[in-house]
Amino acid sequence: MEFNKALERFKEIIKLSNAYTYAMGVITFDSETAAPKNSVMGRAKASEIFSGITYKLTVNEEYFEVLDTLSSNKDKLDAITAREVELAVQSLSQIRHIPIEEYTEYRKTLTYSQNAWVQAKRNDDYSIFAPYLEKIIAFHRRVASLVAPDMDPYDYWLDQYEQELSTKTLDAFFDKVRASIVPLIKRVSERGDIIRTDFLERHCPIELQRRLSDYVMQLMHISRDDCAIAESEHPFTLELDKHDVRITTHYHEERLISNLYSVIHEGGHALYELNIGDDLIDTALAGGTSMSVHESQSRFYENIIGRSRAFVEILFPKIKELFPEQYKDVSLDEFYLAVNKAQPSLKRMNADELTYAMHIMVRYELEKRMMHGEITVDELPAEWNRLYKEYLGIEVPSNREGILQDVHWGGGMIGYFPSYALGSAYGAQMVEAIKKDLDFDELIKNDRINEITAWLTERIYRFGRLLKPGDAVRAATGKDFDPQYFIDYLTEKYTAIYGLDKE
Amino acid sequence: MEFNKALERFKEIIKLSNAYTYAMGVITFDSETAAPKNSVMGRAKASEIFSGITYKLTVNEEYFEVLDTLSSNKDKLDAITAREVELAVQSLSQIRHIPIEEYTEYRKTLTYSQNAWVQAKRNDDYSIFAPYLEKIIAFHRRVASLVAPDMDPYDYWLDQYEQELSTKTLDAFFDKVRASIVPLIKRVSERGDIIRTDFLERHCPIELQRRLSDYVMQLMHISRDDCAIAESEHPFTLELDKHDVRITTHYHEERLISNLYSVIHEGGHALYELNIGDDLIDTALAGGTSMSVHESQSRFYENIIGRSRAFVEILFPKIKELFPEQYKDVSLDEFYLAVNKAQPSLKRMNADELTYAMHIMVRYELEKRMMHGEITVDELPAEWNRLYKEYLGIEVPSNREGILQDVHWGGGMIGYFPSYALGSAYGAQMVEAIKKDLDFDELIKNDRINEITAWLTERIYRFGRLLKPGDAVRAATGKDFDPQYFIDYLTEKYTAIYGLDKE
Repeated sequence: MEFNKALERFKEIIKLSNAYTYAMGVITFDSETAAPKNSVMGRAKASEIFSGITYKLTVNEEYFEVLDTLSSNKDKLDAITAREVELAVQSLSQIRHIPIEEYTEYRKTLTYSQNAWVQAKRNDDYSIFAPYLEKIIAFHRRVASLVAPDMDPYDYWLDQYEQELSTKTLDAFFDKVRASIVPLIKRVSERGDIIRTDFLERHCPIELQRRLSDYVMQLMHISRDDCAIAESEHPFTLELDKHDVRITTHYHEERLISNLYSVIHEGGHALYELNIGDDLIDTALAGGTSMSVHESQSRFYENIIGRSRAFVEILFPKIKELFPEQYKDVSLDEFYLAVNKAQPSLKRMNADELTYAMHIMVRYELEKRMMHGEITVDELPAEWNRLYKEYLGIEVPSNREGILQDVHWGGGMIGYFPSYALGSAYGAQMVEAIKKDLDFDELIKNDRINEITAWLTERIYRFGRLLKPGDAVRAATGKDFDPQYFIDYLTEKYTAIYGLDKE
Repeated sequence: MEFNKALERFKEIIKLSNAYTYAMGVITFDSETAAPKNSVMGRAKASEIFSGITYKLTVNEEYFEVLDTLSSNKDKLDAITAREVELAVQSLSQIRHIPIEEYTEYRKTLTYSQNAWVQAKRNDDYSIFAPYLEKIIAFHRRVASLVAPDMDPYDYWLDQYEQELSTKTLDAFFDKVRASIVPLIKRVSERGDIIRTDFLERHCPIELQRRLSDYVMQLMHISRDDCAIAESEHPFTLELDKHDVRITTHYHEERLISNLYSVIHEGGHALYELNIGDDLIDTALAGGTSMSVHESQSRFYENIIGRSRAFVEILFPKIKELFPEQYKDVSLDEFYLAVNKAQPSLKRMNADELTYAMHIMVRYELEKRMMHGEITVDELPAEWNRLYKEYLGIEVPSNREGILQDVHWGGGMIGYFPSYALGSAYGAQMVEAIKKDLDFDELIKNDRINEITAWLTERIYRFGRLLKPGDAVRAATGKDFDPQYFIDYLTEKYTAIYGLDKE
């Protein structure tokens, strides 16, 4: 195929893909926020048709030729197009290397496995799910052997979700975390229930909580003209366009901080998307570069900024103003401690900043052994429970609250979990770099968080997917990723909060 | 083209069209209810791409052949497919008969004319808009002469919006209305300001108004699982699927009945869509058959049911319960009279049940003369003002509040207005038929409106677009459309409300 024709066709496909992504994005947002319950059938029909159309858009011989032509003429491409081609090639690598029957068979397995997972969890019966998990693991090993026969199969899948991430990096990361954080959690647990949190459960009307959300958005300097808030069962962020990002939250009348920290977390995701460079608009690179980098930013705003003493200082007076009765007997310090309370728990989704990485470490170790064929599906639950005891010090009473708690494996996502833990660790390294350039706490206290955002925009946000995920930390800090920052951050913070230095 | 191939292709195109209509529907709903202000750019890009795709879907030689093949084999088609083909042929008739350059040129004119209308209205300067209106009228006359050279040009355009509607029907309708309603309005106006409405402007918190909306939805027996309410600048109804209809409303703290009657009006539109027959799902006929029939239903619920004494009896106690302070000095009768107050006004959009048709009559007379070449663009404003004086007895102080008030002509819609007035007249004829079968007022008082809806479903709703608009009245009443019912309904109602029989 002629180079110019290939380039033109490539750009056209991106334009079309972006339009379909936009439409499917709005449909998803609508389904989670506004659609009535029985809308599911109409949506399923439309979604099926669009899935078919978008599949055909890129999975066809002509487009493969387009990509081959462009890939073999990389020197003629500008940096943006070259990166777009690289990502397009990567996203099609599986479909081009796996026999279509195997691929179709697997898609069918996934449909059933998700339902099997729901049933298994509901009935607390792992055996319903086990045969599907077995097939999913087998498929993952098979795909890796076909597409990247020279790679470690788990490395192949890690790289799919997080380009260039490998067991080498993660082993080093989790080894350090295990050595330092497991003992730290043990010490915190031994201190017992010394932080008061009773007031967090007091009734706070939703109308007033909405006003708190408005205030938080304002503190984060997020323009409501570019970013809407809606309500959904589970909070999420969706980017439709540089000037159209949506975040959602869920209000609980008896859990004020649930919405509060959801908004800050999703607001962090939103700030990343809202600050993508103008040169990337309408390209395939106009979005956050990966889940771990995205998560590093949401957790940065949620935990490192949002749970800092400085932020609580600017936030708490507003809480007192909106909820004078509920908070009349609560001091700023008590509130600060309450939002930072750490406690080992069974559920990853509810885990606090200190214990979160432990939940991921359990999953990482199991996934690695699955991919290396070192553990059978039947052995997984017992091993899960053993690791929870070892890392978090807690007994898992049932598979429902144990190995069946997450949707990911049943949905065919093996290799995705580690990104969750990396995000927090990246953030801890970044804040060290920021503090060298900016008076971090003073900016937060003086309603100037936008200057911190500008720092991150300059180094990460504006580059969108042009920046490889592994390069984000280097771009921000000038150094390779080093988990020691994360260890130090947690140790220092929780030593102070739990007075461990005074023991 | 081979018949079976044509049929298969036709069904496929309908399926694709429905999916795009669904996506564009969700995008529209989102833009009016949830999207942030600056979402406009992202949406414009996606919409342009989808417009292009859907245009190409049906405007191409292959599809024309499909339609020709099916049209010449009507005897082989079932009733549903035959009607789908008929509507598809009609919707493409213009594009197939008008030279593409003229069509493109006109589309361009429309883009500018809408903006010109905005400017003209803002500056109260008709001369900004006049040259565009001139072009639009010329194009309408030209299209009619090309597509239907044997028809009256205005009849051609009426038929485009409302199949089989003609000046013959409308002349008869408006002649009767003019003869009876103009004097009735005069008598009502002479009675002066005898109805108390001060309490309608009292402050009613939006949170409580939302609960009133919930109650109204319940009284209308609309399932919230199939129909969501959202908030938008202007209320509208959007149908995405038989089990997914959306209505919107707008709350005004100082205008309780604005939201109240919006919900009932849009709820009427929703009931029509929610009761389309299951046999029409996924066809091109799964929707209300025309604007006038749709409007007949929304106005039926809003005015004939919603403003009836019986409905006010079941509604008012809830208003007293939700707003005890605001309504402590208001009786049921006072509320009933207040929601039925009639008063000639300048704006069509704010007109009451009695005076509404007069606003349409002015537009009808002017449109007819435009299409017949009997009036120049320059003569229109003076003629508009003269007719407002004659029919409504009021002076029009400016073009902004006169001929420039509506968006329709600037948007290229000539022939659309009459449907608005027909809707109310259809409803008046239908209620007479309903009263022969059902104890209308008792059903309303006893929270059994669903039985009235079932009556309408049986005769109109379930047939969707299979029913021709002109046949809706016949299907419901067994008789041809007769405007006398409307005259009688208004005369009886307003004679009682204004005590004209006691004069």
